[in-house]
Amino acid sequence: MGSADPIRAFVEGQQNQWLDELKEFLRIPSVSTDPARADQVDTAAEWLGGKLREAGCTEIEKWPTEGHPVIYGAWREAPGAPTLLVYGHYDVQPEEPVELWDTPPFNPTVREGKLFARGSADDKGQLYIHVKALQAWLQTVGTCPVNVVFLIEGEEEVGSPNIEAVVREHQDRLQCDAVMISDTVMFAAGLPSITYSLRGLAFMQLDVTGARGDLHSGSFGGAVVNPAEALARMLASCRNPDNGEITVPGFYDDIVAITDAEREQWNSLPFNKTKYREELGVDALLKDADYGVLERTWARPTFEVNGFLSGFTGEGSKTVLPAKAMAKISMRLVANQDPEKIMNATEDHLRALTPPGVRLKVTRMHGGKPWLTPCDHPVIQAAGRALHRGFGTEPVFIREGGSIPLVALLEELFRAPSVLMGIGLPDENAHAPNENLDLGNFYAGIASAAFFFEELGSLE
Amino acid sequence: MGSADPIRAFVEGQQNQWLDELKEFLRIPSVSTDPARADQVDTAAEWLGGKLREAGCTEIEKWPTEGHPVIYGAWREAPGAPTLLVYGHYDVQPEEPVELWDTPPFNPTVREGKLFARGSADDKGQLYIHVKALQAWLQTVGTCPVNVVFLIEGEEEVGSPNIEAVVREHQDRLQCDAVMISDTVMFAAGLPSITYSLRGLAFMQLDVTGARGDLHSGSFGGAVVNPAEALARMLASCRNPDNGEITVPGFYDDIVAITDAEREQWNSLPFNKTKYREELGVDALLKDADYGVLERTWARPTFEVNGFLSGFTGEGSKTVLPAKAMAKISMRLVANQDPEKIMNATEDHLRALTPPGVRLKVTRMHGGKPWLTPCDHPVIQAAGRALHRGFGTEPVFIREGGSIPLVALLEELFRAPSVLMGIGLPDENAHAPNENLDLGNFYAGIASAAFFFEELGSLE
Repeated sequence: MGSADPIRAFVEGQQNQWLDELKEFLRIPSVSTDPARADQVDTAAEWLGGKLREAGCTEIEKWPTEGHPVIYGAWREAPGAPTLLVYGHYDVQPEEPVELWDTPPFNPTVREGKLFARGSADDKGQLYIHVKALQAWLQTVGTCPVNVVFLIEGEEEVGSPNIEAVVREHQDRLQCDAVMISDTVMFAAGLPSITYSLRGLAFMQLDVTGARGDLHSGSFGGAVVNPAEALARMLASCRNPDNGEITVPGFYDDIVAITDAEREQWNSLPFNKTKYREELGVDALLKDADYGVLERTWARPTFEVNGFLSGFTGEGSKTVLPAKAMAKISMRLVANQDPEKIMNATEDHLRALTPPGVRLKVTRMHGGKPWLTPCDHPVIQAAGRALHRGFGTEPVFIREGGSIPLVALLEELFRAPSVLMGIGLPDENAHAPNENLDLGNFYAGIASAAFFFEELGSLE
Repeated sequence: MGSADPIRAFVEGQQNQWLDELKEFLRIPSVSTDPARADQVDTAAEWLGGKLREAGCTEIEKWPTEGHPVIYGAWREAPGAPTLLVYGHYDVQPEEPVELWDTPPFNPTVREGKLFARGSADDKGQLYIHVKALQAWLQTVGTCPVNVVFLIEGEEEVGSPNIEAVVREHQDRLQCDAVMISDTVMFAAGLPSITYSLRGLAFMQLDVTGARGDLHSGSFGGAVVNPAEALARMLASCRNPDNGEITVPGFYDDIVAITDAEREQWNSLPFNKTKYREELGVDALLKDADYGVLERTWARPTFEVNGFLSGFTGEGSKTVLPAKAMAKISMRLVANQDPEKIMNATEDHLRALTPPGVRLKVTRMHGGKPWLTPCDHPVIQAAGRALHRGFGTEPVFIREGGSIPLVALLEELFRAPSVLMGIGLPDENAHAPNENLDLGNFYAGIASAAFFFEELGSLE
């Protein structure tokens, strides 16, 4: 087993080259939710396969799915050493509203040490650190302290509808001792973080339909149930505005409260509620009884309206009584809420509120289980040491409010701990205009990922 | 004063020619709410001015406004005879959603005796009957039994923001003994109708703004007030779903109940609630206590969501926490509700419901007073006789749920009764895809309009 010393030097020497590669990756608009861009998603998959080969993977495969393909790559020349499965996703969120970007979303631009592009932080830039980490070992030391298997999907941003089937089909080849995922954020700039819990997700589309077609609101107003109003009432019915409580019956039944130790640890984190609020540009935060902000975003479930559309929304006025109204809603879930059970309860709740005169169609877009793992696990602690070496700073152990649907499945199938070593920052606008990635964290992330191979290989 | 006998023959002989002219008019996409189409709106105004000249008007002027111009035309060669002011509008509603039209909205197409095009019924086809009626008199009899003044605006579909100023500025030249407007519908096919009351309108846009930008619903969900949810709660708060009552405080304070005579008359109209419901394609109508459908649409005020938009509304899913949400709402008003007072009350109601964490901006798009006139007025009765002659059928006297903001003003300024002699039909999709006009009614409408000149000229 070689030493990691030459690794650091090599990573520093390759920065410009690897930044150029990442820009190339980010120029491909692999928006998985847009059927018109299926070709681009495939192009991103092919590109990544090529880079895995350049990094030294000896097995590269593109596994087709009913949607976008999964890229598999592996280097297994360390017999007897543990195997690390690196999961990530090469697909990205839609770029809209595109007019709010300062530079075009698929024209990567560096400003003040940050790389601006859709997918820079979520997840192309983050997954790429592990590709480069393997390359660093193989091109300097000539071997790697662990076997590394890459599983990079193209449908994470649409809820990973096919990854479970792919993982089950190829379970033998994905067998591993630990799972590494970089798709989360650091608690703050300069504070490298390991995440030990994720929220789950239940995403649904609601379509409310009224009369056969749009009507003149003067001629028919008063006689016809307005689908937009009916839908608004459904959306408004899911929360008690007085205390912020979600009112879907049974919603909180299964949740696990946080421990006193966790609350204490979180209270020691550098979090300033006023600054947080001011950075968001709001005069108050959402009520949720008296839970703290970190607890609300990490360990409490949510109800969210992600979008709605009905009737006339252009310039000016149009006195139409719309024939239909649509909303997209989602709930973030915490241990041990079950997405299926929550979606059933929500659908029942909304159906009961659907007045005669309109019809409700509920489409379940996707669900993902919440995930929670003990943070004193040796592999988690090994990752902490790697981060410390890569960033030169003691890491913190935190939770995350977002969702990575696959984490729970991988842990269940392989009985291997997951390490969520995100190098994104909270203000990097994942899922929003002007998404960006701090290049210092990108380079320190590559070093940390390389050091983690060593730390993992050294475990008893 | 000449006889109207040659009129009927002339109108019959000119049908094809006048249909072609109307098609020309309808090919101009004079959508007043769309700033990009201001030129087209002006083109329609110019076109109409030319036709008024061809019809025999000796005064033609295009009066500029801060928005779209007003076309004025007059024939005043009947000294001592009454003067009729014909009001109408050459602007049209937006055509969207354009994909629901069977034939393009601005490519007029005749199918089964109906002319399909945006503006065919509302109001180009209807206003044009009066232009042709004047032409019929002047080209056959050589004179007209009344002086005729045309006042045709281009901003009715955006709430007539400038017509009041124009009318006040040119009050002397618009002086009249009666006002004729064809911008309403007949009660049913084969049942020519005079309308003696209109509902008013209060149209507002609501913009709710939250955080500085769209956020990742996983990272921030639970901490940030969702503007879409807040707006949904506002929209849902305006009606009691149990009895259909509008809950804006003071909303019903000023309304005048209908008389027993009116209710009796309406009950005798051929109205089938089941058929009405089935034609709309809904399994139930809106609750409004136990008021009948005609009363609800003619004599009861409404609250309507005309459209809303927020967040991600494309294909698939996007877990965004939107930064803003917009809705367009309107209320139809009945005598004696005041639009200003209703908008104040509504805004107060909504502001009180705006939670900390979001901001509400209310934009008052337009308001129009309700109008109610006695139906036994001699001019109304004269119009009834003209319709009888034109259609060969006894007319009915009805109310209308829509709004024509100018009617109340004209009545107030000129102390002249208004005659609402609409020849549209209730199923002609004004404001919706596949708007159309029955050509039989168009031709009978021209004859009726011509006969009305005679009936009005014969009054003591």
